[in-house]
Amino acid sequence: MKLSALKKVFVGRPLPTAQARHERLSKRTALAVFASDALSSVAYATEEILLILVGAGAVALAYTIPIGIAISILIVVVASSYRQTILAYPQGGGAYIVTKDNLGTLPSLVAGAALLVDYVLTVAVSVAAGVAAVTSAFPVLFNHRVLLGVLCITLIATANLRGIRESGALFALPTYLFIVSFAGMLGYGYIRWALGWEMPPPEHAATATHAVTVFLLLRAFSQGCTALTGVEAVSDGVPAFKPSEARNARIVLAVLALILVTLFMGITFLARHYHVLPAAEETVVSQLAHQIFGGGLLYYEIQAVTMMILVLAANTSFADFPRLSYFLARDGFIPRQFGTRGDRLVFSNGILILGGTAAVLIIVFGGDTHRLIPLYALGVFVSFTLSQSSMVRRWLTRRDEGWWWRSWLNGIGAATTGLVMLVIAWTKFLDGAWIVALLIPVLVMGFLVIRRHYGDVARQLSLEGYALLPPVQNTVLVLVGDLHKGVVAALRYAQALSPSARAVYVELDPDRTRRLEEKWGKWGLGVPLAVLTSPYRSLLTPFLDYVNHLLALGPNHVVTIVIPEFVPARWWQHLLHNQTALLIKGALLFRKRVVVVDVPFHLEE
Amino acid sequence: MKLSALKKVFVGRPLPTAQARHERLSKRTALAVFASDALSSVAYATEEILLILVGAGAVALAYTIPIGIAISILIVVVASSYRQTILAYPQGGGAYIVTKDNLGTLPSLVAGAALLVDYVLTVAVSVAAGVAAVTSAFPVLFNHRVLLGVLCITLIATANLRGIRESGALFALPTYLFIVSFAGMLGYGYIRWALGWEMPPPEHAATATHAVTVFLLLRAFSQGCTALTGVEAVSDGVPAFKPSEARNARIVLAVLALILVTLFMGITFLARHYHVLPAAEETVVSQLAHQIFGGGLLYYEIQAVTMMILVLAANTSFADFPRLSYFLARDGFIPRQFGTRGDRLVFSNGILILGGTAAVLIIVFGGDTHRLIPLYALGVFVSFTLSQSSMVRRWLTRRDEGWWWRSWLNGIGAATTGLVMLVIAWTKFLDGAWIVALLIPVLVMGFLVIRRHYGDVARQLSLEGYALLPPVQNTVLVLVGDLHKGVVAALRYAQALSPSARAVYVELDPDRTRRLEEKWGKWGLGVPLAVLTSPYRSLLTPFLDYVNHLLALGPNHVVTIVIPEFVPARWWQHLLHNQTALLIKGALLFRKRVVVVDVPFHLEE
Repeated sequence: MKLSALKKVFVGRPLPTAQARHERLSKRTALAVFASDALSSVAYATEEILLILVGAGAVALAYTIPIGIAISILIVVVASSYRQTILAYPQGGGAYIVTKDNLGTLPSLVAGAALLVDYVLTVAVSVAAGVAAVTSAFPVLFNHRVLLGVLCITLIATANLRGIRESGALFALPTYLFIVSFAGMLGYGYIRWALGWEMPPPEHAATATHAVTVFLLLRAFSQGCTALTGVEAVSDGVPAFKPSEARNARIVLAVLALILVTLFMGITFLARHYHVLPAAEETVVSQLAHQIFGGGLLYYEIQAVTMMILVLAANTSFADFPRLSYFLARDGFIPRQFGTRGDRLVFSNGILILGGTAAVLIIVFGGDTHRLIPLYALGVFVSFTLSQSSMVRRWLTRRDEGWWWRSWLNGIGAATTGLVMLVIAWTKFLDGAWIVALLIPVLVMGFLVIRRHYGDVARQLSLEGYALLPPVQNTVLVLVGDLHKGVVAALRYAQALSPSARAVYVELDPDRTRRLEEKWGKWGLGVPLAVLTSPYRSLLTPFLDYVNHLLALGPNHVVTIVIPEFVPARWWQHLLHNQTALLIKGALLFRKRVVVVDVPFHLEE
Repeated sequence: MKLSALKKVFVGRPLPTAQARHERLSKRTALAVFASDALSSVAYATEEILLILVGAGAVALAYTIPIGIAISILIVVVASSYRQTILAYPQGGGAYIVTKDNLGTLPSLVAGAALLVDYVLTVAVSVAAGVAAVTSAFPVLFNHRVLLGVLCITLIATANLRGIRESGALFALPTYLFIVSFAGMLGYGYIRWALGWEMPPPEHAATATHAVTVFLLLRAFSQGCTALTGVEAVSDGVPAFKPSEARNARIVLAVLALILVTLFMGITFLARHYHVLPAAEETVVSQLAHQIFGGGLLYYEIQAVTMMILVLAANTSFADFPRLSYFLARDGFIPRQFGTRGDRLVFSNGILILGGTAAVLIIVFGGDTHRLIPLYALGVFVSFTLSQSSMVRRWLTRRDEGWWWRSWLNGIGAATTGLVMLVIAWTKFLDGAWIVALLIPVLVMGFLVIRRHYGDVARQLSLEGYALLPPVQNTVLVLVGDLHKGVVAALRYAQALSPSARAVYVELDPDRTRRLEEKWGKWGLGVPLAVLTSPYRSLLTPFLDYVNHLLALGPNHVVTIVIPEFVPARWWQHLLHNQTALLIKGALLFRKRVVVVDVPFHLEE
């Protein structure tokens, strides 16, 4: 009762099913809703590239711009591919569904596992980066970043358990504020640069500890590919657009890609111009904002909108993860509990698992974005590759209008993302990508085991060809240790179940048996009393022998064991009583044709 | 099943009640059985005195001998008092029983609480000191003393769970070996001294950090009083002696006191002569043995017998604690579970609690004897004082032959031990005695609360004046969510319970209801199906409303809820199914007149 009251305070009152509805989004709102995940990665992508290159000194840092350009091209390729998916799947084309449709079950499970892993990482990375934005502005908080991260996840999860409306207002303000603020900061930075108001500080690159190898450059590229995470969000959510859905979604995706490339390249160019290098306790974006704005209000505004967009990005996963879980549960690949909505019309189990796992990641990796990044992006590119390959297959099979050039376009997308996937797996393997590379097949195996179990259960429970059995022969036994009000209540109940109910007593001490038999004449309600002897003081063994004897009478015989149990008024009083009922239940839990019934007798104090 | 097999390997097969018997002990064997606890304290008592005095420099160390003499006098006084108790209680005179007999319940509970605490400390201190004897001989083990201590307690507890016979052989060899070895070492030490074979090393007392105050001397005395622990054991075990029991017990107690004083004073004198001072990693006894025997075999023999006698002392508590628990449980002051013997005729619960608590003490205090000692002895002296006061009361009430001088003798015992009790509480309060001083009243309060609860329960369950109620009106409901073999099994069972059983279905989705109703016609066994609507998707609320409605029919109405539950073949498969049965049970656990019955359907794979 208390627990449910607590739940009401934090989670809110239950909502009736009839309230489940969706609002349709205008292009402007849709951009805000779907952009946060993709745009938020500009907060860390440039920094992660620099972090790899800086180890190889000033020569290596010169490669920052080319790598940024390569990533921008990749963004354009992926966005173009997904614009095709939107066309083909106006009902929403998540990688799991698209792959299942075109490549079959096993590839779709790989996509599903990759996405689940990535949603968890999106939450962990976004929250860690959001906390880094805050601790850059307020360095005293730096040592508390694990705590801040966990608190932040708890808040987002709680909000989602209450059921956030996908309302434009919530998303629109921070997202547009972020776009305007970053565009403003970058524009002002370029003006200062163009007008030559100041000389950038000299480069302080540490002496190189690594050589500039192809591997190093590919690793920097892989780290930067985190910029692409979230680009697929628009194609998942086509049905949320106002009509005509597909057309509007394609426009929004193109605009999103444009903004993403602009902000990402803008930050990358300026970071090089100002010779900003990664530092342990301050993010690259924070250093850049310091350079451009000094330490004033505008600096704090940049940190605040960075934090907000990252929280929104994390929040996106709290819609995506439960939705994918729902699909997987519906198809029987994960426990059914993920397929049912909770009191507040949200998929509570998915939200709890996602929040819990992300919080564990934050704790294990010390809330450090840099240590989480190597795990990130691999899953995204696995799902990109599978999704684009599915589209190729689809064009080739269906041969719709323009199939040949469309299949080429998606083919380029599939080949590019597949190649990048391999590069990421190779260059980040030892840094942590191995965890994801291991986890995806393990999850897929789990999905298959669960699917098989549900199949087995359905087969065993099926009434197909089931022959009706003769009625059950039920023997009702009351297990007694004494005769008091609680036992009398059990005897009365047993008589209601069966007029031939009998009581069974296991004798540990002949004197007590004699006293019990005396009482029985007066209060036993006429129920016959069987006394079993127990040479080893075991309550259980003689009783089980007796039950076995009854079960041996035939396959339709069932034994119902009624146990008088008193329910103390306070929890600690349970410790003061022999847990006989529990013991008997434990012993009979796996016995067939045995039913145990507690008859509670409620104590008042 | 596996658990019980494991239990058989470590604890042994159950023993029949008929095997419960006791052997009677000769004086020689009885001395071995009852001496270990008392004699073992010579392994640390001298060291604890020196440890306090050394802080006040060489001047203070001169007080070692007078303090030793005072403690020896105390031993004689206490032993003389207890020889009277033996005379008065030939059936065994533990402090709890003697106090209950003469001073009433509350004082007896104080004695009981003090003894329980002290038994735990006897185990912890003896094992810590035994491990110290081993690590003195093998310093490499010093850093593993917590582990060694816990292992040692586990071994003793396991042996006791198997049921050690109180066989003379087990105790006689180590006890006599200890007495002979220590007597030999001391004798040889005195001969070397007398013959002047060597000069003792010069005294290395560190510069004094404390002044020699009365408080310091009393503290040293208090620490040394641990030598008295275990002296009372003989009077507890009088019935185990061969006839005439009391006479033999009195002789054994006198001999025990003589040996104890001899060994304790012998070690104290020699330790002073050889200027042995406490060291962190080697015990005083070990240093003494090194001085007298060098590092040869005889040195290791002394360490080995020290370890053995200390293990025996710890073992004594494993007989005493469960026995006292049995008395307390029989009188209703602690949970009844302590009053029943286990499979192997031992009081398993007492053994487990004792071993567990002592192991926790070893872990919390880092296995360090010196840190445990301040907690020790206070409980013993509380029970000494209460026991001796009881005897005074007894003589004054009964006026048996010689009552006036006997009451004086016990009066001196009571006054002396009472005074020492206050001294111990005062001087060791901040070092840890406060824990015991706090714990004893808390335990006594717990005893009283438990006693009251059992009284309340007995009153509520009593059939005294109970009017027979009319027969129960039982309504049998089967809660169904689908129709499959498991549900059919539950329906068949429900029909055996009541011909008017009905099924209840909570509708979450009207389509499913329609499909269920179609199936029901074919497989529903003619059981009527009630469909309840649920606007908030809650399974529970509409169902509970329905149940409440049935209960409102009258005070004799009972609702039996049959829940079909399938039992998966493997534990992890439980996670794949909604735990509806558990949920319903949780919601109805505290409801009166509601009985929940699971009907298991066993899955094969």
